[in-house]
Amino acid sequence: MIPTIGLMLGDAAGIGPEQCARILSDGRLAELARVRVFGDARVLAQGARDAGVEVGGVDLVDLGNCDPGRIPRGAVSAESGRIAGETLRHMIERAAAGEIDGITFAPLNKAALHAGGWKFNDEHQLFAHLTRHQGFFGEMNVLDNLWMSRVTSHVSLRTAIEQITPQRIDEALTLADATMRGAGFERPRIAVCALNPHGGENGLFGSEEIEVIRPAVEKAAARGIACKGPFPSDTVFLKAFAGEFDGVLSMYHDQGQIATKLKGFNRGVTVTGGLATVFTTPAHGTAFDIVGQGKATTGALESAIRLCARLASKRSHVAH
Amino acid sequence: MIPTIGLMLGDAAGIGPEQCARILSDGRLAELARVRVFGDARVLAQGARDAGVEVGGVDLVDLGNCDPGRIPRGAVSAESGRIAGETLRHMIERAAAGEIDGITFAPLNKAALHAGGWKFNDEHQLFAHLTRHQGFFGEMNVLDNLWMSRVTSHVSLRTAIEQITPQRIDEALTLADATMRGAGFERPRIAVCALNPHGGENGLFGSEEIEVIRPAVEKAAARGIACKGPFPSDTVFLKAFAGEFDGVLSMYHDQGQIATKLKGFNRGVTVTGGLATVFTTPAHGTAFDIVGQGKATTGALESAIRLCARLASKRSHVAH
Repeated sequence: MIPTIGLMLGDAAGIGPEQCARILSDGRLAELARVRVFGDARVLAQGARDAGVEVGGVDLVDLGNCDPGRIPRGAVSAESGRIAGETLRHMIERAAAGEIDGITFAPLNKAALHAGGWKFNDEHQLFAHLTRHQGFFGEMNVLDNLWMSRVTSHVSLRTAIEQITPQRIDEALTLADATMRGAGFERPRIAVCALNPHGGENGLFGSEEIEVIRPAVEKAAARGIACKGPFPSDTVFLKAFAGEFDGVLSMYHDQGQIATKLKGFNRGVTVTGGLATVFTTPAHGTAFDIVGQGKATTGALESAIRLCARLASKRSHVAH
Repeated sequence: MIPTIGLMLGDAAGIGPEQCARILSDGRLAELARVRVFGDARVLAQGARDAGVEVGGVDLVDLGNCDPGRIPRGAVSAESGRIAGETLRHMIERAAAGEIDGITFAPLNKAALHAGGWKFNDEHQLFAHLTRHQGFFGEMNVLDNLWMSRVTSHVSLRTAIEQITPQRIDEALTLADATMRGAGFERPRIAVCALNPHGGENGLFGSEEIEVIRPAVEKAAARGIACKGPFPSDTVFLKAFAGEFDGVLSMYHDQGQIATKLKGFNRGVTVTGGLATVFTTPAHGTAFDIVGQGKATTGALESAIRLCARLASKRSHVAH
């Protein structure tokens, strides 16, 4: 069964429409997913002109909500951000109605979303709001089939430390395990980061490892999640990149992102896990500096669609 | 003028004696430094046997304080740790007396030092204690001539956040700038990390960037230090590795160490900056798993001696 993936063109001022047009022009992902585009036909046409391709025969739900002549290209646009949020809201309703099995979106621009009235710290919180989600959810970054997730995210480091509780660690491990199983891992091996330097050095540099993290990891392991840790965070990524683990759970944003970005973050895919609908997007941004030049690459967006199809199929399979 | 560098053999249970013997056997650094070894002749002889080399004609101050027959090899030894600290104390006195211009030590073992009665969080604090140092000092990690330093170090992340003050940032920048000038940079370009994700996202994810870090960076820049920032810490190392900066000042231990270890930390050199005597050491550890097998490499230790000589020469030159 081939899933139907809703594709959102991304911020109209960015490279998303060009990327989408290029992917849609030759049906290169047709064996994996039926791609249904949601957006404005004029924006897609502009993307096709940028890419120098034809996009006839595309399954397009033309929302008629975005006149590209009114959106300055390669710059933050409140109008484009407002429309991006509206389009995503529409797609989430379609997903809830069972018309699409997952959503992939080309790059959004956070400042544009904010300026357009969608005042969330990140798109994952926007999606949680739109899906009326209660409970834990989170961003995962997938690169070379290594899955990075975190216990806390877009908050100050002080707040992150306060948020690191046994319950959140348990929820984050549960989510990572379930999402990775959904992506095809039979029993994903997850390394858990320590919070403090040298993993707390037996309590000398902080007690969170002893009092909070280790008990939570042991509890999750006892339930059957293949997790280990806490490991000192300055060496755990070396182990993971060497193949010792399938994923790493970080305690805070930069802990994981420093390693992931050095590894080549922009090639990767960001997944929103834990919501009623699967969301994937390329890890890179709107690349305003190259908009309209016909040189936007599509690798990460293709990976995002592929991963969305994989997660949606598995989910649908489980549901049956 | 060729400086005289005191070389300490490292923890007698580790690979240090073998490394030192190999370096000393062929005088490979003779053009850069006069190397004076401090330790026990029997330990050096054991290292020479491990390395399969002869070490005749070495300038050795035989302290006669370590019988290798009493030190189990490849394991943490309180006796070896105690002796390592005693040897370093002796060397620091010689340096204070002007007999040596700097100190390079082969790998120490922190657990051994602790067990041997030297109860400091790291060797830098031990050195500060032994040199009766007051004021700021710190560890720098040098790799491919990129200099990593930090505002806080071996403390819990909670404590690190409390310690991030304008004064400490100023002292850390001053120390990094002076040490790097000492190593030959005319005007080292130093990037300063933010504390919070996305550099605080204009105050949305924490106020330290606005209230503490940026003012400190601007103040130091106004005094002539070529520093910039704060930069989001998940991309600043990419910029630095690409050559945009000569050094990065991190706010806390793992922020810098995650990046440095991924880059190949073990090849690098650790410098203790800010004390009356220059100290350098290879970044790697005692490698207990390969002790006595004759396969310890010497690249990082040679780099440490070379860097010590460079820093000591410059310092001596300035003093004249």
